[in-house]
Parts: sequence; C-alpha cells; structure tokens
Amino acid sequence: MAEVRNKQVVLRDYVVGFPKESDMNTVEGRITLKVPEGSNDVLLKNLYLSCDPYMRVLMSKMGHEGFGCYIPGSPIAGLGVSKVLESGHPDYKKGDLVWGMTKWEEFSLVPATQIDFKIEHTDVPLSYYTGILGMPGLTAYVGFFEVGSPKKGENVFISAASGAVGQLVGQFAKLTGCYVVGSAGSKEKVDLLKNKLGFDGAFNYKEESELDATLKRYFPEGIDIYFENVGGKTLDAVLLNMKLHGRIPVCGMISQYNLSQHEGVTNLAHLIFKRIKMEGFVVNDFYHSYSKFLEFVLPHIREGKVVYVEDIAEGLENGPAALVGLYTGRNVGKQVVVVARD
Amino acid sequence: MAEVRNKQVVLRDYVVGFPKESDMNTVEGRITLKVPEGSNDVLLKNLYLSCDPYMRVLMSKMGHEGFGCYIPGSPIAGLGVSKVLESGHPDYKKGDLVWGMTKWEEFSLVPATQIDFKIEHTDVPLSYYTGILGMPGLTAYVGFFEVGSPKKGENVFISAASGAVGQLVGQFAKLTGCYVVGSAGSKEKVDLLKNKLGFDGAFNYKEESELDATLKRYFPEGIDIYFENVGGKTLDAVLLNMKLHGRIPVCGMISQYNLSQHEGVTNLAHLIFKRIKMEGFVVNDFYHSYSKFLEFVLPHIREGKVVYVEDIAEGLENGPAALVGLYTGRNVGKQVVVVARD
Repeated sequence: MAEVRNKQVVLRDYVVGFPKESDMNTVEGRITLKVPEGSNDVLLKNLYLSCDPYMRVLMSKMGHEGFGCYIPGSPIAGLGVSKVLESGHPDYKKGDLVWGMTKWEEFSLVPATQIDFKIEHTDVPLSYYTGILGMPGLTAYVGFFEVGSPKKGENVFISAASGAVGQLVGQFAKLTGCYVVGSAGSKEKVDLLKNKLGFDGAFNYKEESELDATLKRYFPEGIDIYFENVGGKTLDAVLLNMKLHGRIPVCGMISQYNLSQHEGVTNLAHLIFKRIKMEGFVVNDFYHSYSKFLEFVLPHIREGKVVYVEDIAEGLENGPAALVGLYTGRNVGKQVVVVARD
Repeated sequence: MAEVRNKQVVLRDYVVGFPKESDMNTVEGRITLKVPEGSNDVLLKNLYLSCDPYMRVLMSKMGHEGFGCYIPGSPIAGLGVSKVLESGHPDYKKGDLVWGMTKWEEFSLVPATQIDFKIEHTDVPLSYYTGILGMPGLTAYVGFFEVGSPKKGENVFISAASGAVGQLVGQFAKLTGCYVVGSAGSKEKVDLLKNKLGFDGAFNYKEESELDATLKRYFPEGIDIYFENVGGKTLDAVLLNMKLHGRIPVCGMISQYNLSQHEGVTNLAHLIFKRIKMEGFVVNDFYHSYSKFLEFVLPHIREGKVVYVEDIAEGLENGPAALVGLYTGRNVGKQVVVVARD
C-alpha cells in the first residue's frame, strides 16, 4: 500500500503566555492508508476540527492533571468530525461519520476509544458536531440545566456570550423563560447577541470601565445564574451582584489561561453572604447525557428555534491562526477549521 | 416599678480594619424590669453571650445586605443564652431558658421573634447553647453533612480548626470515618486538636512558609472536603490540593473580614480541572434542622464521644476584649462571655 501525503499541524515548543501562530508549524508527513494487521484502531479522514479554549492548557509544559499536554514535534489534538476510511474495530465501519478526539492532520489512525460518538443525524451541517451537536453543545446543556438548575423568570448572565458555548446557554435560558444578558468583546458580537441570538441585553466589556456598575444597570435585582466562561475581573464584579442562593456553573476561565499568574478574585466572601454555589464541571463527566441532549436540541434546530453561529476557517494551514484567535476573541461564534468537506 | 442598672457594651463608631477594645465602651444604662402594657416583647436576663466572627461584618458602616450593621452609641447584639424574667408572648413564660439574638447588656427587652429556641435539656452546661448546642454546632453539622456530603474514608481539611465550629467539624468527620487534619494558629491549639479532639494531624499555619507543600505532606492523595473558615491564602493553597469532585463548604473567611481589600484568590481555575463544588451557606437557612441536630449530638455529648472546648471570659466588662481577641486568634476554643450564671 502506497503512502500518501498527510499535512499536519505540529506544536513547535511549549507555550508561555499568549499562544502565537508561530508556536505551531504546518508540516507534510506521510501515512499509509491502512489499519495495520491485527490492530483495533480506526483510520480516519478528518473533515472538521474544533478550536476550543481548553487547548491552551495542553500547550503548557505542565498541561494539567487529568488533561495531559501536547508533545512538541507532534501534531496537536482536539475534537473533530471525521469519516472512517477503514476500521479494525467492530463498532465502526468504512463510511461511518464520527466525532471524538483526533489529531490536527488530514488522516489519523486512532484507538477506537478516542471516538466519542457515531453521527446518526446528517440532515444538519456536519460541522455542527464540533459545536452545537458536539462537546460545546453538551457543555452548555449540562452546565446550564444540571449545574445551574434554572427556574423560569430567573436572571442569567453569560460571559463570552457569543462563543461556542455561551450563545447556546443564552438561547437555552430564553427557552426556559429567563431574562438573559451576555458580555462579549466587540460591537459585532454584541449586535449578534441582541439581534440574532435573542438575548435581552448585551454589552461590550471592553467599553465598560466599571463592570460592577454595568452589571447593576442590567441586573438591578441581581443575578441568579452566572455562567462563567472567563474568570478574573468579570467574576469579581459578578460576585458583588449575585442574588441570594445564586449559582455559578464554572465552565471555563479563558481570560486566565495565558497568564503566568492568574488574577486574584477578592469578593469570594459573597459566596457566604449570598449563599452561592459555585461549581466547576467538565463535560466529559456528562457524556451519558448526550442522547438526551440530542433529543432536546435537534427539534429546536430543525424548527429554527435555536440557531448556531460558526466562524469557519478553510484549510488545515489556516488552523493555527484560527486557534490562537480564540484567545484574543478574533472569532465570531464557534471557531471551526475545515480540513475537507467529505 | 423602679429602674435598675443595666450595664451595656456600646459600639463607639464604625470599625475600619482590625477591631480594638476601644471601639466599644462599657456604659451603665437603666432599665425598668417590666414588659410594657400590651407589648408582646420578652424581658430577658442575659447569662452567656456568644462571640462570633460574623460580628465583625456588622461593625462596618455598610454591614452587609441581609446582615445589617450595628449602630454607634447603641449596644451591640449577638447570640446568647438568657432567662425569661417576664413575657408578653404566649410561647414564653417566666423562668424559661432560651437562646437567640440578644443585646450585650445585663437585661434586654426583645421581640419574641428574636428568640430562636427554648432550651429543653439542662443536664449539659448552659453555655453550650452559645456553642456546640447553638448556632456554631448547627453550623458545623449542616455545613459538614449537608453541604459537604462526606463519605467514609474521605480526606477532610479544616481551617480555624480549634474554633467554635472547626473543632466540631473535625469530631463529626472522625465519627464519619474520615481522615482529618486541621490548621490553627498556635502550638497550644495544635496540641488540643491532636490530643483532645482526635484529629489525625494538625499544624500551626504561622510556622508553615509553604502552605502548598504542607498540604501535600498531609494529603499526598489530595483533599475531598475543605471546610472553609478563613479564606485568602489558605483557600488558594487548598485549591491546588483538592481531589476530583471535591467539595468546599464555605462557612466563613475570618482572615478577610478586617481587610479593606480582600486578598486575591488566584487558583479558582482548579474548580474546573477538579470539578469542585464550592458553596457558601448561612446557618439561619437550616434552623429547621435544629431538633434533628440535637438528637444527633446530645447522646454523643453525654457519652463523652464529642467534647467541646470553651474559652470563658468572666463579666460583661471583659466582653470587648474577648470579642476582638477572635480576630487575632487569642481565644482557645469557643469564646463565651459570662454575664451571670443564673
């Protein structure tokens, strides 16, 4: 069997501070398009790759306990939608579409355990399985409904609100009958939140010098649920504005991942004064809820009651720029990299 | 009806920073020992007054939403054990012993709603109703069992461990079959934890320059439950040492109440990495559990399986020193002020 070209995005060295495009190289590897004799692995053609904030953590030398880290000189890895070219595992066969952990390259040979789910519904865009129908979608669903325990009429604040997860939390909160305000980092994103995603209010945090006062303006009676995506100063201001028995599902702290010393949060005593529950969660603990989630969200997508904004980068060679753009907020909506469309 | 002398502890002015004895005055007021005609109030003779960390919050000008604040020139208030001298309310009669909110003075006329409970069991020291059988006891019980959800064999860390609440959390954790380590601020307290209160380990945090390393030594496999009484640097070091799915009941942050700017906590991203639940609570929300708590704790006290260390100050005039001593850790065990013994 002849080898073919396999373009790859490789980490050059461990990253300190903000990641740069030049922290990654696009190189030409070679791969034999064949599952080795006797192997249970699955050979994938990668179609859509997902850019997710947690990937920054894996670029650091230490990575994080339970998260691992990338290896300089090897391709980086992440979630993606792929087509099965050949399978050594009985659960998968040629032509299956799947999503799960794959590598940033054209073709990957992966253990079957890295595949999260076989894709059953293809009447929706395939790229959605990196977003609304994949990890970010399930994250929004379990974080808001299971960790946040929302009730109709409650006040919900979402940071990074136009991102892959935030835009869905906001729409789920509106479907629940909540009052929803989001923060984002540009006028374009704020317009999107208000005009396309149905938020009751939205503001550009970069233009607000006193975040505490801004929150008091949008939430004169306080916040019941803060869906935390950013950490740092935003969290500190939110703590001053939480209502009694408020909840803070902690999904991410993207503002902090590139700092060698994280910002100090000083208002934690409000957890006591207001009896607040602040709970970190990782979506991997909730993959058993995926089919329930699909049942919930697919009809809403088909009926146009939930929409999803994607930011599509064309070609693996544009992947590094797309990925590092997450940390400066360059993307508008879910950042996806297209390697191939089928 | 003749007036009698009524010694009182009065706040001089709102407090900034650490409270001092001189922030309070002991003055001689006058009171008529009679419930006014037609009033539902209850006239109390105060016996034991409770010194509790939250009282610092009430000394600040702003106090805190839902907590109120003291009024300069008026007696301060707090929990105490009192004897009913006369009652305008049908639930109470002369001679009843009660605990609840009272003022720092010899005699108080209070609305019946300020009385929390009538004291039914007097085979134990009456002062216990300011501690193990009062608010701190119920705090330890609901904070550990309801907010902390402990399981046998789990690793428990407690700060301010020899205090009114901490010493009970440690003993409840040992009764549950947990491994228990506490921190405190003197050799005497550490000895007490290890030799009298049955902790598996204890250390003086003032002698540990690297709290992270200290915690790793006591908890090589990490902490399942951190019972939070102090906040600040201790919390930051604990976050680095929590186990997966750990829980942090947030009872208090005594190290922070006297600071005009609270210390920044920088390791909150570990809430995500370790899927930690951090939950503030206030015991007032759990007063419905008080009789269940008494059923649990009274037999343990009578059998000597749970002990309680008190630090008794004699006389209302020694109250201010006892109260401010809490914030420098001068007290060993629960700080009580005796106004009268019966």
